[in-house]
Amino acid sequence: MVQIAVVGSGSNDKEIKSLAQEVGREIAKYGGVLVCGGLGGAMEAAAMGAKEMGGATMGILPGDDAKSANKYIDFVVVTGMGHARNVIVVKSADMVIALPGGPGTLSEIALALKMGKQVISVGGFLPWEKIEGVKFIKSPKEAVKYIFDSGICK
Amino acid sequence: MVQIAVVGSGSNDKEIKSLAQEVGREIAKYGGVLVCGGLGGAMEAAAMGAKEMGGATMGILPGDDAKSANKYIDFVVVTGMGHARNVIVVKSADMVIALPGGPGTLSEIALALKMGKQVISVGGFLPWEKIEGVKFIKSPKEAVKYIFDSGICK
Amino acid sequence: MVQIAVVGSGSNDKEIKSLAQEVGREIAKYGGVLVCGGLGGAMEAAAMGAKEMGGATMGILPGDDAKSANKYIDFVVVTGMGHARNVIVVKSADMVIALPGGPGTLSEIALALKMGKQVISVGGFLPWEKIEGVKFIKSPKEAVKYIFDSGICK
Amino acid sequence: MVQIAVVGSGSNDKEIKSLAQEVGREIAKYGGVLVCGGLGGAMEAAAMGAKEMGGATMGILPGDDAKSANKYIDFVVVTGMGHARNVIVVKSADMVIALPGGPGTLSEIALALKMGKQVISVGGFLPWEKIEGVKFIKSPKEAVKYIFDSGICK
Repeated sequence: MVQIAVVGSGSNDKEIKSLAQEVGREIAKYGGVLVCGGLGGAMEAAAMGAKEMGGATMGILPGDDAKSANKYIDFVVVTGMGHARNVIVVKSADMVIALPGGPGTLSEIALALKMGKQVISVGGFLPWEKIEGVKFIKSPKEAVKYIFDSGICK
Repeated sequence: MVQIAVVGSGSNDKEIKSLAQEVGREIAKYGGVLVCGGLGGAMEAAAMGAKEMGGATMGILPGDDAKSANKYIDFVVVTGMGHARNVIVVKSADMVIALPGGPGTLSEIALALKMGKQVISVGGFLPWEKIEGVKFIKSPKEAVKYIFDSGICK
Repeated sequence: MVQIAVVGSGSNDKEIKSLAQEVGREIAKYGGVLVCGGLGGAMEAAAMGAKEMGGATMGILPGDDAKSANKYIDFVVVTGMGHARNVIVVKSADMVIALPGGPGTLSEIALALKMGKQVISVGGFLPWEKIEGVKFIKSPKEAVKYIFDSGICK
Repeated sequence: MVQIAVVGSGSNDKEIKSLAQEVGREIAKYGGVLVCGGLGGAMEAAAMGAKEMGGATMGILPGDDAKSANKYIDFVVVTGMGHARNVIVVKSADMVIALPGGPGTLSEIALALKMGKQVISVGGFLPWEKIEGVKFIKSPKEAVKYIFDSGICK
């Protein structure tokens, strides 16, 4: 199965959550598995979107408590490894979609690039200036279409 | 969903693989998710058993390559963290079933006990003497029944 | 430099702490670096022993707070990775000395054996029965002598 | 002891290595412990600088082999955790000095900011545009002076 990570702010920004939800829906429409950090904000909205379309979701938690996963997570990975779980989110993905976020999101983008994975930035510019290797696509629909057209699913 | 980890030898011991397969089948019959290390031997046999019964499987890999997962793994967690992935296998499980194995399996049993999780040893004695906190149940069927009767699925 | 890990109970057992202190002293006498989990009990006693002899100590902490290291730790490694730090303690050691302890200690012994490292059990039997690959040496002095006579320091 | 992480390119860029060496020297002059990733490029040059001034160095390696540490590393932390070791480098530091580098360096800067640690960028601009929270100081001498004047060593 194709696994797509969605990374982005854990805060409750309404616009980011709306984008995340649409990204989640689109991933599920293509039969992709949504991988995320399992908590709130963009992670929860993306998982909610995926479940609306009957997709599967995997949440990779930083803490020790499986119950900290949001209610749209099907498969819970409990790492107890704090920020190191960001590495696993990215490593477990065939491609990474980045929504606006803070330094946690930036760390995931940078780790993905370091691993040679493509990062698609969705929904307008990130709070940082352009980072080489990140592809900007405005619409969630177009971004996910780009991923599944890219030959990622052989 | 209830997530049950199956740990045991990665080698090709026929008897252990047969036990693992039966454990996997039983977990799937109860609707549990099989969590394992994602590689060969007992891990592969347990995942095969789960898939025979239409269950879901999650493989938590030590290396960097998603393709190293055995073919019965639905959801692949790529850690790139070597032996530290044993911690995640155990942390992600509601209960742990241990089949005979070597020191890697022993580390997973010990980590589970350290985390306060119950460990069920299936299929005869482990190569080490009795470890306090491990419950021995000979038959895979009885072991999985014990788990799901224990109130783990509220 | 030769790095020797000392693993054992974090509790305040007087006899274990006395053994740990002597182990720490002996490692320092040979010019070895003491590696441990950085917290209390056997870890603290071993580090105290090493400092009495002017040795160097490294503590690999499970949590996020450098201040949780005991006061005999010179170099603090803050992992924030919980139980996964046990893997690092063992991987960073040329050899492992195990004092009596609980399942956390057992996990470190098992991980060391899995990595092909020799484990020396000091000070009487562990709470588990004999584990293949572990060498029992009663006296701290003899145990550390054995390690440095083994050609570990080329 | 005050522990300062130096992060930057692992490549052999002459100018970056010269900056790194000077940073290492300055940290040692103030009695700080140099923490780094333990490999080549900026990591090796910084460690070399620290040793020139008799300072102590700690290298936190991504791989499984203690021998992969550069020859200026006193204390070797072997993680076997790949990119997740970046988290430990940053967590183990009281402050982080960033030299120019690629996405690996960017991930360490972002992780440090996520953890609430101050990041000092030394020696001209990073390859990315300005990141909020990073303080730019041109000269290694001034950068390290800033750190030790900041009250980090109570």
